[in-house]
Amino acid sequence: MEIITSRNNYLIKDVVRLRDFPSFRRTTGLFFIEGIRLCLDAASSGLKAKYLFVTEKFYSSKKKECENLFPISEKLFLISDDVSEKISDTKNPQGIFLVVYGLDNQNNINKINFNGKYIAFENLQNPDNLGAAARTAEALGLDGLIVSGGCDVCNPKALRASMGSLFRLNVILSPDLSKTLIFLRDNGMSTYAAVVRDADTFVNTMDVSGGIVCAVGNEGNGLSEKVISSCMKKMTIPMKGRAESLNASQAATIIMWEMMSR
Amino acid sequence: MEIITSRNNYLIKDVVRLRDFPSFRRTTGLFFIEGIRLCLDAASSGLKAKYLFVTEKFYSSKKKECENLFPISEKLFLISDDVSEKISDTKNPQGIFLVVYGLDNQNNINKINFNGKYIAFENLQNPDNLGAAARTAEALGLDGLIVSGGCDVCNPKALRASMGSLFRLNVILSPDLSKTLIFLRDNGMSTYAAVVRDADTFVNTMDVSGGIVCAVGNEGNGLSEKVISSCMKKMTIPMKGRAESLNASQAATIIMWEMMSR
Repeated sequence: MEIITSRNNYLIKDVVRLRDFPSFRRTTGLFFIEGIRLCLDAASSGLKAKYLFVTEKFYSSKKKECENLFPISEKLFLISDDVSEKISDTKNPQGIFLVVYGLDNQNNINKINFNGKYIAFENLQNPDNLGAAARTAEALGLDGLIVSGGCDVCNPKALRASMGSLFRLNVILSPDLSKTLIFLRDNGMSTYAAVVRDADTFVNTMDVSGGIVCAVGNEGNGLSEKVISSCMKKMTIPMKGRAESLNASQAATIIMWEMMSR
Repeated sequence: MEIITSRNNYLIKDVVRLRDFPSFRRTTGLFFIEGIRLCLDAASSGLKAKYLFVTEKFYSSKKKECENLFPISEKLFLISDDVSEKISDTKNPQGIFLVVYGLDNQNNINKINFNGKYIAFENLQNPDNLGAAARTAEALGLDGLIVSGGCDVCNPKALRASMGSLFRLNVILSPDLSKTLIFLRDNGMSTYAAVVRDADTFVNTMDVSGGIVCAVGNEGNGLSEKVISSCMKKMTIPMKGRAESLNASQAATIIMWEMMSR
């Protein structure tokens, strides 16, 4: 095991870039995760790591768990607490980190089951919302998640909030969500756009009998006009209170629940 | 307007304590919020502030909005950017802060409408979950939120995530949730405990025709045995996937939706 004690080590700088920059994740095909539970989830989901970083303190306290990560990791590094603080995204890092090779569950559109249930996100901004929605999607048994270019499924915060669901779910990356929705409609799926006003139907009167995909927009602006007009119907969640609209992940939760529970 | 430029000013130290320590909030009957939108929400909800803090930069860019806060604030302070960074809970503070007198929507149990719909939380840990659940409760039109001692409705993060809903909702603080639930049952309400296993009913087969309250537990441990046994029935959300359980606020969203949409 090599030892790194300098915060200025070139590899450590790259890890920080992987943590912070989606563009660097895309260029390298790598992403960054931390915390033993998420690292073990990655391992049990069949992912492979390029690097493992662990502090002496964490290794000596959780030897067995750490060693479960050794076979999937190409190179192991023992790091100082100082370096651990530098690369961590949290206030109190556990001291265990992986740099992982890109998710192979990011299938293309041809892997969609036209009889399945899917939720699609356009440019979701908050990684916690994406993570929470993925966790709900897995818990409720959706067939997969479709995400447009603007959603980053390898964001460390999203991966953490998903409790590993983003490793296991069928995630379809769509470079053009509008085109994808038209393709799915042409293949017999019902396509719905979640809107706040001028809806054709309520979420609890949607036809959920066959294959279906519901598109949900981002936190600030909702869905784009282009995506809305590519869907067969506009759907809304009836609201009684004064809150302007539901949080994107809470709205997605209600929509997924209605798709799966009837 | 007085000027504060020192991070070590005694008042600034108190503001930080209000931000970080629930016990200090309870002792003083004050709480801390930041960001213009939340501050204006507090004002329009009829709250009064003891102190307003604003940076010169923010004041000159949003003069009118700031001046809407002057009539509700007893004392105004112009602070340096350095002080703004010290008291802020966020990475990029806007530069506007209020120290507010305790919420007067924290009614006691006698204010509950026995024909209404309520959600109760036992020791919710994550303030973002409490805030998101409050936002959903308001959007869906629940009659109120019951929170046990362990949930802190004046936490700055919870208030921010609630988008002001915690100012407007009817929030009942219960020092003993189990006793409260028995009292509500004795007054004709249906009381349900959300559990992961050994349930009597599913969330979508609950009787939601009359007054109802559903108790949801904390993120790690769920509801305590004491609270579960004080409810009339145990209820669960059917899950198909591999995720261990839903996030507390996503589970609460499904439960509230089922209470309000049938």
